[in-house]
Amino acid sequence: MRLRNKPWAQDKLDAHPEYVPQEAEQFRGKWQTRFEKAQPLHIEVGSGKGRFIVEMAKAHPEINYISIEIQTSVIVSVLELQLEAQLPNLQILHADGRNLNQYFEPGEVSRIYLNFSDPWPKKRHEKRRLTSADFIKQYEEILVADGEIHFKTDNQGLFEYTLYSFSQYGIKLKQVWLDLHHSDFEGNIMTEYEEKFSSKGNRIYRLEAYFDNEETKSK
Amino acid sequence: MRLRNKPWAQDKLDAHPEYVPQEAEQFRGKWQTRFEKAQPLHIEVGSGKGRFIVEMAKAHPEINYISIEIQTSVIVSVLELQLEAQLPNLQILHADGRNLNQYFEPGEVSRIYLNFSDPWPKKRHEKRRLTSADFIKQYEEILVADGEIHFKTDNQGLFEYTLYSFSQYGIKLKQVWLDLHHSDFEGNIMTEYEEKFSSKGNRIYRLEAYFDNEETKSK
Repeated sequence: MRLRNKPWAQDKLDAHPEYVPQEAEQFRGKWQTRFEKAQPLHIEVGSGKGRFIVEMAKAHPEINYISIEIQTSVIVSVLELQLEAQLPNLQILHADGRNLNQYFEPGEVSRIYLNFSDPWPKKRHEKRRLTSADFIKQYEEILVADGEIHFKTDNQGLFEYTLYSFSQYGIKLKQVWLDLHHSDFEGNIMTEYEEKFSSKGNRIYRLEAYFDNEETKSK
Repeated sequence: MRLRNKPWAQDKLDAHPEYVPQEAEQFRGKWQTRFEKAQPLHIEVGSGKGRFIVEMAKAHPEINYISIEIQTSVIVSVLELQLEAQLPNLQILHADGRNLNQYFEPGEVSRIYLNFSDPWPKKRHEKRRLTSADFIKQYEEILVADGEIHFKTDNQGLFEYTLYSFSQYGIKLKQVWLDLHHSDFEGNIMTEYEEKFSSKGNRIYRLEAYFDNEETKSK
């Protein structure tokens, strides 16, 4: 993603602690207190400009959402959307996806969305991919027993890698779409990136996966 | 595949027991006696007209191959190729892929190829797909501990299903190709079908998979 320098972005985030909590580690295990209602918690790791999670939060008032993004000049766009929408079921977490277990207690999260994550195509950067083993381990820790990971990308290499990586870890696939926009999948909400690249003819790949606790948790 | 009626086909098969053994169940556990040399055994389930397995057998004299096909009027084409090539490392098994364990002993096979298998797209025909659970169970029985399944298809639905089905069974993916003909995969031998449909622009999907014996065999 092209990044504009936005020197005012951090100040804007700091000015809205009702949506962007400061010292967010303090809410580990207590995220439900940040929402109007206690209900299942879905998080997106790497929200970019936030259209996906804001639209999801609008469409699903029965779910609480947290948008997670490390880049200050990007997450401020999520805040701007939320300042317009003022959704009671959306919080914004300015944090590194690498440290999820510092922010979430085991079993605190019901679903994790990964959308168009950075492919890090070079083999030596494998560990930076959000679907590599160390990340998966974190997801497993913070998810409820029947929790799911929903992943989509237009990057063929990253999707191939993810199928491999999930298989190696022992995550079970619930469903796979090799051409999402020409499938019968309903209710897809496009990210900014997805709209741009699918309009150029890129295929969108998607999968839903879950941890098979009987087999995997015992590792 | 379009089938021509070939009333002479069975007679031709019967005339070449050196390549097409009769009462083939008798060779269960003894297939190596049918080849010039004892060496790893790779089988193709559903060989069609046989170009793939004949070319593989030519390219890999260090491997023994068995071409398996149920349809008389199709497998006769494999025999015709073999009558020309006279490969000492290729046998032809006129049998139903459904009964592999009647023809092979546990651990007798090192690798199974499935190429452009019938997709059986209707949900009620799921059990006929060569990558559904009952077939996988047979493959697991006859394969050696580190044996592999190599599968390719241009059928998106069948490939999606296979990723799901293998994942559910607990088979591990070794590698996945979502566009084989535009990848760095080397040594691909095309089937007749593959050449025809890839030239029309169809993507070819491929995977290599193996049974993770520590986890899976204990089921």
